[in-house]
This record gives sequence, C-alpha cells and structure tokens, in this order.
Amino acid sequence: MSEKIRVIAKFSPKADKVDEVRAILSEFVEPTRAENGCVVYDLLVNEADPADLTFYEEWESAEDLAAHSKSEHLAVGRKKLEGLLEKPADVRKYILVK
Amino acid sequence: MSEKIRVIAKFSPKADKVDEVRAILSEFVEPTRAENGCVVYDLLVNEADPADLTFYEEWESAEDLAAHSKSEHLAVGRKKLEGLLEKPADVRKYILVK
Repeated sequence: MSEKIRVIAKFSPKADKVDEVRAILSEFVEPTRAENGCVVYDLLVNEADPADLTFYEEWESAEDLAAHSKSEHLAVGRKKLEGLLEKPADVRKYILVK
Repeated sequence: MSEKIRVIAKFSPKADKVDEVRAILSEFVEPTRAENGCVVYDLLVNEADPADLTFYEEWESAEDLAAHSKSEHLAVGRKKLEGLLEKPADVRKYILVK
C-alpha cells in the first residue's frame, strides 16, 4: 500500500479553444470521481486567466492513479483534446510534506 | 459573502537552500490552519523535484485569504525567505469549475 498522492495538472488551450477544452475537461469529472481511490478531483480555473484550466487531484495510492491514467474514459477524453491545446498538459505529482 | 477560493503557490528555492526553505514553509502550516476561513492548507513536494515546494490552499472567501496574506506570522515567514528563493513565489488563485 503506497502513500496518498496528489496531482496538479494544468491544461493550456489554444486561444480560440478555451470554452471547448473547458467543456471536455468538465466531462472528466464525474467518471473520475467514481473511480477506485479517487479522493478529490476538482477542475479549477485561474481567476485571472480563463485559459489556465487546472485539475487538483488526490488519490489513495499511486496504483489508483495509474489505473485512472489507463481508464477508457480518459482515452476518449484525450482523443477529443487532440489539436486543441497550445502545449501538452503539465502534470505534476506531489506528496504531502505537512 | 464571496465564493470559496483555491490557491496554488509554488516556491522555488535556490539549489543549496531547499531544506532550509522547506523547513520555513513547514512553519507556515499550523498557524495558517488556525486562521479564519482556512479549509485546506497543505504543503506538498513534487515527487520528481524536491525543489518544487507547493502549497495547495482552500479558503472560505477572498476576504479570508486577504486577511491571511496580511497576517503577522506570514510577514515573519516572508522575511525568513529573503534571499533563499531562485525567483518570487508563483501564486495563482482559482475558482471551482466542477
């Protein structure tokens, strides 16, 4: 059993694709929250920048996160995002210091 | 009464100051969690980069966050961090999309 893991994943849509990307990412939320080991999965938007769409995630374990990243619904979502992002998603994994 | 607000605040210590900055940031946690309107205040470290020290925060309102940013203990903490960071802290405010 591994330690709880957090993820901060930032998506940067192309300038004319912000609403479209926001809608696609919103579709990730419900199926992900239903996955094993998902503690928090919140889609956030930067108050000062509508094109900074960021997931804040907490997972029970690295194994649960790995299963999520291989999920069918995420594969479908990634397909929908093709060509809509300015650059690849910036995904960082964190552990709690305090 | 304003909307709940999230903060992602990334600190980038100088290469030889990582442990020192981590210790100083750790001191922020307890007094901040005791502040009005603080829902979550977690200090995280990037699994792949010990020099990426990031707070994930949730506040009941923008007013509570503003009071936090003016708190005495944070002023003391900022003073301790002087000269130890590679660049200024990257602090972003977010609201929930979904």
